[in-house]
Amino acid sequence: MVQPKTAQKMSPPKRNSRSSDGKVPGIVGSGQSDSSYWTYGIHAVAAALTNPRRKRYRLLVTRNAEKRLSGSIVDLDVVPEIVSPKAIEALLGPDVTHQGAALLVEPLETEDHHRVSADIPAADMPVLVLLDRVTDPMNTGAILRSAAAFGAGAVIAPKRHSAPESGALAKAASGSLESLPYRRVVNLAMTMRSLSSDGYHLLGLEGSAPASLEDTLPLIEPWVPIAFVLGSEGVGLRHRTRSHCHQLVRIGKGGSTGSLNVSVAAAICLYAESVRQCD
Amino acid sequence: MVQPKTAQKMSPPKRNSRSSDGKVPGIVGSGQSDSSYWTYGIHAVAAALTNPRRKRYRLLVTRNAEKRLSGSIVDLDVVPEIVSPKAIEALLGPDVTHQGAALLVEPLETEDHHRVSADIPAADMPVLVLLDRVTDPMNTGAILRSAAAFGAGAVIAPKRHSAPESGALAKAASGSLESLPYRRVVNLAMTMRSLSSDGYHLLGLEGSAPASLEDTLPLIEPWVPIAFVLGSEGVGLRHRTRSHCHQLVRIGKGGSTGSLNVSVAAAICLYAESVRQCD
Repeated sequence: MVQPKTAQKMSPPKRNSRSSDGKVPGIVGSGQSDSSYWTYGIHAVAAALTNPRRKRYRLLVTRNAEKRLSGSIVDLDVVPEIVSPKAIEALLGPDVTHQGAALLVEPLETEDHHRVSADIPAADMPVLVLLDRVTDPMNTGAILRSAAAFGAGAVIAPKRHSAPESGALAKAASGSLESLPYRRVVNLAMTMRSLSSDGYHLLGLEGSAPASLEDTLPLIEPWVPIAFVLGSEGVGLRHRTRSHCHQLVRIGKGGSTGSLNVSVAAAICLYAESVRQCD
Repeated sequence: MVQPKTAQKMSPPKRNSRSSDGKVPGIVGSGQSDSSYWTYGIHAVAAALTNPRRKRYRLLVTRNAEKRLSGSIVDLDVVPEIVSPKAIEALLGPDVTHQGAALLVEPLETEDHHRVSADIPAADMPVLVLLDRVTDPMNTGAILRSAAAFGAGAVIAPKRHSAPESGALAKAASGSLESLPYRRVVNLAMTMRSLSSDGYHLLGLEGSAPASLEDTLPLIEPWVPIAFVLGSEGVGLRHRTRSHCHQLVRIGKGGSTGSLNVSVAAAICLYAESVRQCD
């Protein structure tokens, strides 16, 4: 284990207006790029510390958090800097639940080719979640968390008008950002066409759809892989995205569930699909 | 419609350390109590404006938000004060998504008797959600939102060690705090006994339970009302709460879903119950 150094004199930079994202572009960290960001919270930091694909620059921890992370702080490329909770609060802002741990990282490399399923074995086409302009990092992170829990293959979103990797997203993902691909593609419609030709059945979620998820899913042959497509709250699916779905479904038979949060809707889809797979 | 007054000279009080809760105890509002708080966001404010049971003190809106709320600002007990977004930000803090609307309100009266179902008609015993020490306001608010969407009768939590009514909770509830009872009871175990004697089947959620939700629910007679009992993330159900459940179930057959967010777990339970009711 690397000996931690006590960074008593560390003076964190002034709070940045984008601090709720955990983005502090100006902070010192050897070799970092403009897109680096602070990830925080015990689960998110522990997962990022043990991910060999993750590029790390600095690790700030309180004494207490260092103990909780001791299993993950082994043979590290970064030396833990022991700081006060206030130092991390000064860095990330007062409203961020950092749990005494902040890690300056580079975003993961995400491939942007359209054939998302090209590197997924044909015999094992996992359920996918496609997000059409879901820009909220907390919702996107929560969807990654549920997707990982239900064994999904990836969460896919367009490069533009979606939530980029950030501290808030990673915190809501609770570590799953390190294990589940969050793929941001250039053109969502092209990705949908590609998935369709690979055999995926694309199910779009829409509150006003006549068919319900619970009635529709059991009618799809069990060997057909499913990709759920969800739009942002309020706006829903864009016309072009909708036109690339094989079917549109709503959640709930009563039709009163148009007001579900998008991360809740995604989790219900994944649950319903897991039940179909086990039936 | 009440004529709005332009509050150009209004100087909002300094940002309070508890501002993410929307609690600003010192602010001027005629007749308000210590427990009053600022609720914010278009959906939450619109719902609170049209709830006859809600006691209101002050309404701060931007010009844009006033237009969006025009359907709700009718015959009001409060006069809308037109302010800049910055004035609301100064009041609630920079990380709060207020959408240009903040309303100073009194918490709703919640009865604290144990017989929660006493005033629910016997023929119509709706699904209930019981929360054991879920203290996060965002999770509790999100659960209220899903519970309202699926037609639940109430969300019930102990008075101590649960999230009190606050701006953050109301925002996450997206208006449903005004229509769905959020009952905080003195003793959760006594409430569980009372519900049990009223005929409710108490299903506790536990990641390590041998039985799964999807296998268990269909075996319960369709006329038996269900109350789901969920604990906080990490800690789970307390021993005493667990002992008052009729059955313990997990979500997912794979056993890998112990890491679901509590609001996601609650929504999945409510979805599964709505499917059972329709089958």
